[in-house]
Amino acid sequence: MAGNRAVAYMGPGKVEVLDVPYPELVLKDGPGVNPANVGRPVPHGVVVKAVATNICGSDQHMVRGRTTAPEGLLLGHEITGEVVEAGPGVEFVKVGDLVSVPFNIACGRCRNCKERKTGICLNVNPDRPGSAYGYVDMGGWAGGQAEYVLVPYADWNCLVFPDKDQAMEKILDLTMLSDIFPTGFHGCVTAGVGVGSTVYIAGAGPVGLAAAAGAQLLGAAVVIVGDLNAERLERARSFGCETVDVSKGDPKDQIEQILGVPEVDCGVDAVGFEARGHGAGAQQEAPATVLNSLMELTAAGGAIGIPGLYVTGDPGGIDEAAKKGSLSLSLGTGWAKSLSFTTGQCPVMKYNRQLMMAILHDKVHIADAVGATPIPLDQAPQGYADFDQGAPKKYVIDPHGMIAGRSAA
Amino acid sequence: MAGNRAVAYMGPGKVEVLDVPYPELVLKDGPGVNPANVGRPVPHGVVVKAVATNICGSDQHMVRGRTTAPEGLLLGHEITGEVVEAGPGVEFVKVGDLVSVPFNIACGRCRNCKERKTGICLNVNPDRPGSAYGYVDMGGWAGGQAEYVLVPYADWNCLVFPDKDQAMEKILDLTMLSDIFPTGFHGCVTAGVGVGSTVYIAGAGPVGLAAAAGAQLLGAAVVIVGDLNAERLERARSFGCETVDVSKGDPKDQIEQILGVPEVDCGVDAVGFEARGHGAGAQQEAPATVLNSLMELTAAGGAIGIPGLYVTGDPGGIDEAAKKGSLSLSLGTGWAKSLSFTTGQCPVMKYNRQLMMAILHDKVHIADAVGATPIPLDQAPQGYADFDQGAPKKYVIDPHGMIAGRSAA
Amino acid sequence: MAGNRAVAYMGPGKVEVLDVPYPELVLKDGPGVNPANVGRPVPHGVVVKAVATNICGSDQHMVRGRTTAPEGLLLGHEITGEVVEAGPGVEFVKVGDLVSVPFNIACGRCRNCKERKTGICLNVNPDRPGSAYGYVDMGGWAGGQAEYVLVPYADWNCLVFPDKDQAMEKILDLTMLSDIFPTGFHGCVTAGVGVGSTVYIAGAGPVGLAAAAGAQLLGAAVVIVGDLNAERLERARSFGCETVDVSKGDPKDQIEQILGVPEVDCGVDAVGFEARGHGAGAQQEAPATVLNSLMELTAAGGAIGIPGLYVTGDPGGIDEAAKKGSLSLSLGTGWAKSLSFTTGQCPVMKYNRQLMMAILHDKVHIADAVGATPIPLDQAPQGYADFDQGAPKKYVIDPHGMIAGRSAA
Amino acid sequence: MAGNRAVAYMGPGKVEVLDVPYPELVLKDGPGVNPANVGRPVPHGVVVKAVATNICGSDQHMVRGRTTAPEGLLLGHEITGEVVEAGPGVEFVKVGDLVSVPFNIACGRCRNCKERKTGICLNVNPDRPGSAYGYVDMGGWAGGQAEYVLVPYADWNCLVFPDKDQAMEKILDLTMLSDIFPTGFHGCVTAGVGVGSTVYIAGAGPVGLAAAAGAQLLGAAVVIVGDLNAERLERARSFGCETVDVSKGDPKDQIEQILGVPEVDCGVDAVGFEARGHGAGAQQEAPATVLNSLMELTAAGGAIGIPGLYVTGDPGGIDEAAKKGSLSLSLGTGWAKSLSFTTGQCPVMKYNRQLMMAILHDKVHIADAVGATPIPLDQAPQGYADFDQGAPKKYVIDPHGMIAGRSAA
Repeated sequence: MAGNRAVAYMGPGKVEVLDVPYPELVLKDGPGVNPANVGRPVPHGVVVKAVATNICGSDQHMVRGRTTAPEGLLLGHEITGEVVEAGPGVEFVKVGDLVSVPFNIACGRCRNCKERKTGICLNVNPDRPGSAYGYVDMGGWAGGQAEYVLVPYADWNCLVFPDKDQAMEKILDLTMLSDIFPTGFHGCVTAGVGVGSTVYIAGAGPVGLAAAAGAQLLGAAVVIVGDLNAERLERARSFGCETVDVSKGDPKDQIEQILGVPEVDCGVDAVGFEARGHGAGAQQEAPATVLNSLMELTAAGGAIGIPGLYVTGDPGGIDEAAKKGSLSLSLGTGWAKSLSFTTGQCPVMKYNRQLMMAILHDKVHIADAVGATPIPLDQAPQGYADFDQGAPKKYVIDPHGMIAGRSAA
Repeated sequence: MAGNRAVAYMGPGKVEVLDVPYPELVLKDGPGVNPANVGRPVPHGVVVKAVATNICGSDQHMVRGRTTAPEGLLLGHEITGEVVEAGPGVEFVKVGDLVSVPFNIACGRCRNCKERKTGICLNVNPDRPGSAYGYVDMGGWAGGQAEYVLVPYADWNCLVFPDKDQAMEKILDLTMLSDIFPTGFHGCVTAGVGVGSTVYIAGAGPVGLAAAAGAQLLGAAVVIVGDLNAERLERARSFGCETVDVSKGDPKDQIEQILGVPEVDCGVDAVGFEARGHGAGAQQEAPATVLNSLMELTAAGGAIGIPGLYVTGDPGGIDEAAKKGSLSLSLGTGWAKSLSFTTGQCPVMKYNRQLMMAILHDKVHIADAVGATPIPLDQAPQGYADFDQGAPKKYVIDPHGMIAGRSAA
Repeated sequence: MAGNRAVAYMGPGKVEVLDVPYPELVLKDGPGVNPANVGRPVPHGVVVKAVATNICGSDQHMVRGRTTAPEGLLLGHEITGEVVEAGPGVEFVKVGDLVSVPFNIACGRCRNCKERKTGICLNVNPDRPGSAYGYVDMGGWAGGQAEYVLVPYADWNCLVFPDKDQAMEKILDLTMLSDIFPTGFHGCVTAGVGVGSTVYIAGAGPVGLAAAAGAQLLGAAVVIVGDLNAERLERARSFGCETVDVSKGDPKDQIEQILGVPEVDCGVDAVGFEARGHGAGAQQEAPATVLNSLMELTAAGGAIGIPGLYVTGDPGGIDEAAKKGSLSLSLGTGWAKSLSFTTGQCPVMKYNRQLMMAILHDKVHIADAVGATPIPLDQAPQGYADFDQGAPKKYVIDPHGMIAGRSAA
Repeated sequence: MAGNRAVAYMGPGKVEVLDVPYPELVLKDGPGVNPANVGRPVPHGVVVKAVATNICGSDQHMVRGRTTAPEGLLLGHEITGEVVEAGPGVEFVKVGDLVSVPFNIACGRCRNCKERKTGICLNVNPDRPGSAYGYVDMGGWAGGQAEYVLVPYADWNCLVFPDKDQAMEKILDLTMLSDIFPTGFHGCVTAGVGVGSTVYIAGAGPVGLAAAAGAQLLGAAVVIVGDLNAERLERARSFGCETVDVSKGDPKDQIEQILGVPEVDCGVDAVGFEARGHGAGAQQEAPATVLNSLMELTAAGGAIGIPGLYVTGDPGGIDEAAKKGSLSLSLGTGWAKSLSFTTGQCPVMKYNRQLMMAILHDKVHIADAVGATPIPLDQAPQGYADFDQGAPKKYVIDPHGMIAGRSAA
């Protein structure tokens, strides 16, 4: 009971599995922990034995050295697991419950939480609204790519699965509820996707593929996914999406071939600030490309959901503007079409219960859609490397060997 | 009956009143008329005798030579008047009715009109969705700063005032229904303004002041208006707004003095692409200043309404990026706060009826708020010049001397 | 060209196919025509050659003699067809277009139409808001179970299919866009159905089955349909619904067996005022049964959509209260749970375009779901009789033999 | 510190002030306490020293003997006060804070609370969703018409006023945030009241008057209040409402005199099940009168908000149907107009913060509107009696003499 092992960022390109202390009901000091949070008591928390804890594209920003994350930061914010200990302030979540933990940490007591805006909770990060496990500048809550992890405000944050055995049967699907499925779905919802919509999703990484599955669940008539990576596009086609290979030129033309018109009702940016260009020069970073392209592709009156991360500073940016997080946007293009734009972290709790219901009742197969691939904790470093190379997979770390025998597609 | 006089753009800085033909029920050729629209029959149209037809800030973009507007273009898209002739396809609007005409021309038959998105009607402008009277690249519908003007699709577009005499009593208020009152209101609605909100409105021109009045009507707790122009700020204070003088530095500090926090719930950009900087350098154009500032000022979870015009190309822009309509936006700032953004022309018909009710029942005094100032048609050129100098007034052209005796504040 | 044949109500239980005049662009006098509408010019109308025109459950209310419909009333409000003549005021719909006609007639010019409330248009029925083809007390627009029918305000009302050949391939699906598919869908939307919802739909007639298909399209996790009719329940199961046989007792218990809880998130009343009781006495009319039952079944915080028709007077009602249209409702049950209720005609235009997209892109198979069954015009009387006996079919009249070879499931 | 005094229901028509124990952080047994709640620990609770605690119309249902409330039940659910003790699980609310307590008790951890539906919290009342202080069948949380009261889940439930001194200046306004102001406002919001609406509010008791003030704040063009009580109508007129005296006949005619049409956009039922008829027979109970009347008065496409309480059983009902809570509703009237209806407790937390902002910034004077009248705790029984006689006042109990010198109108 006394030990714990966890995935840590150890410098650009370096990820290791470390021996770390077993969680206590207090926010302890460590690399990246905000001084104002050190020693914070967590009687409202639970310790979760991680059953499935996924590697996220946003972790890669840190691992690539594109942030100020310090060495030793424990990674991981996509946590599904079993409650093994509950603090004295926990009333409804029980030891033994299998729970999904939203990546956004929220207190359930502030104005924003009361308004369902749990991605910008006011009480968990001393620096600014919003927090997440295992992430730079997010207050210092330890990452969950570990055997055990502390989850604060557990009665608020945890989504308890109604039947543990049934849930274990679908664990590779349910593990996507902690982040990418709601995140992709939020991108679609804020893009106005509904029954009969035509949708273009920029990016066929896990969030893009999750957005595509979400768009289908919302009743979209046509879901088109664009990327440079042939394998990822192949995965998108595997569950009924149309695809656009942006290395072959302007998405607009390819969309016209699919739809008969060069426009879609709804656009989703599942790429973010590390975007690359279209066509021949597609390998070079061009941070405003995706948004400028979406403004062109989205029909007048449409909306653009932006779950892809944009940052305020990017030390690895390609030029001075990028380093400051400035994007050169053709806003007039969007203005002329009366477009609207929604940014920010997905407030996972707004969607995870309904998406759980859709999974449990077989309305969506999200594990297949994103290529859920379980790996042991010790292979996490390799998982990071493969994912960075564009493997069309979503790596699900399995710290306790509880899901080893399962697989998605 | 056979004559007509109208205000025309005659080159950068030049506005004249010309003798022009009396309108017929057809879209005739002329400066700025799209060839595909020439000769278009308008049996669904009415001829309106303009009672009040206002000069708009967006007209100034043309008059300053910041667009490709051709010489001879008839100006004016804020039209209120009496129906003096109705085409054979007009069924419900009657000769004699006093009507408000939304500045956006809409067909009432296309998908977008059916979805209340009348700012991007698909059938009135051969070039792209959306149209307006008297505006460059909008299809070529003659402007309404004239004695008489043709209004197409009259049953759809015209808002008939229920009582003509009562309406003439409030004509200086009701004339704002054709554009700036709904436009400012739309900025507030899309910024999420509601009962108890704190709101910052960038710009104290007529649209900004109308937005401020709209925010009050929506129940905002505190409405703060920012501008460089002392007289315009004085007008904002006259009806209960707080003000920020952006020539005195960063609005954030002044907002903190007012509210105790350096943030508002809702932000409205009532300036657009001809923005100037803050503080000492405030006289120089800095097209992204307003939006970047609003992203800083607006609290996490908030929204920004952008009724201010952004263009796809600006021949008079201060640098190459501005000339292409590219803005250098710190989108990461907004993303970290989960902000959303709504751009585009206000779909006037979505709001004009309810705002008319508020005016008729004395719930708002919009003429006072914006400084409605009637002038004869012949003084239109002077009105343009004074307005361009920052006069805290909204000039209402009175082509038939029907409102001469009235005044607002 | 000069002839026409149409289905008429000829007294309780009697339906006949009559020779009637070919439509002109004017609303002519006839049985059930409102005097104030007689002679109304319809230059904005088109004559539609009916390709598919369905028998509706609401027609049965008239045919059973439960209304004041006069003999000779031409029936039919579910019209899909080809435009063969267009009035001089029609600009965008063209002769040759294949169109779906919403059953609600709407002018596209009044306040309600502008607000998308086309089920309560103010200008088409002199008696009260709202109208429909071929229906008692709806103004007197001739029914569309005919070879040819007049469709007023065609540019507003007609939904043009983008590709005629493609549309003919799916004509048995697309014909459901004129009424029951949007109507059932509206029931679900107003019941709050979304991704992950559990839904109970009272009634497995065509509207109930269409609601069930609509709920699936909206992403519902579980769709449960209740009825007395075993064949209709069988049809519901054929496309993945769960079912409740209300002749076997209280739906609550059967719902608990399906879901583990005796409640659903959303309730839809697809029955209306001719409801029958549950359990042993189920054959007797009990007009408030469905609504009282839905208030019990729907979980706190839920909503109930009521597309089923309730009337203000029912000459055939089982008692004095029913004759006046008074229902004995346990509103306190709903109040304690904070339920909301939405009644009324579906505003078809709000949904038909998006549902068309879902059909054209194979996201829903509504013809199969409702048992679309083409019959020649001459067999319409038999179709009425069979449908009244509870046949699990939706009869699609095929006046010109254009769809004879096709069938649904 | 050890004592407490509280208002108790002592049988039909009898209210007394009793000596009771000082609250502890546990739900203790007592009259009306649900056995399943007895002994429930409340470490998340605070003890509030009541500064202002109002008598509510819904208390009168109990006091009149219209419920199964047991003798000795401590009354009162409208609580504003100072936190004097905080449990170990309370993190953000501090001793010394002045707070408004929503009348609905909510856990802040269940599905419904997460969806902002705090009126139907799943974890506070063992019998069914939803709870309140001092109310029959609501779980047994002690009433707040007392010197001190226990408030559970304090971090979730309490709205902390930002500045205590400023708040004490407006305490008679702010005390309305615990129930009637949000309740009336919710009635308006669910009735669709917005800028420019015409609104009819049935009932000029405190909730009706609060609804009227709320409608004004929402920008309504005309607010009409109907009642039998001349003094209450006079109060409605005092802040700019129009009035209808329902003892003088059908409200429809009086509305037509005011508006020129016999209809309003929005209807609010601020009466509930103890309604009386209109016209001459107006003194007799007629429980369905208000709702049937609102269906007639509300224009097609409108909505009806029903904050007035309807019950599932009413031992004092005028007939068998009323005793069972059955109402004879002309639903067909509403159906023909496509009306919608929203019932249930107001989820106070959805509105109280924004209404607080409106009060603090002088946008509304709710104390004046409802006739806030402070009385000492010992005069509570007299306050109940006077209120039951129709005094146009809202009695605010002042247990500690902290607001004695203040008054509203």
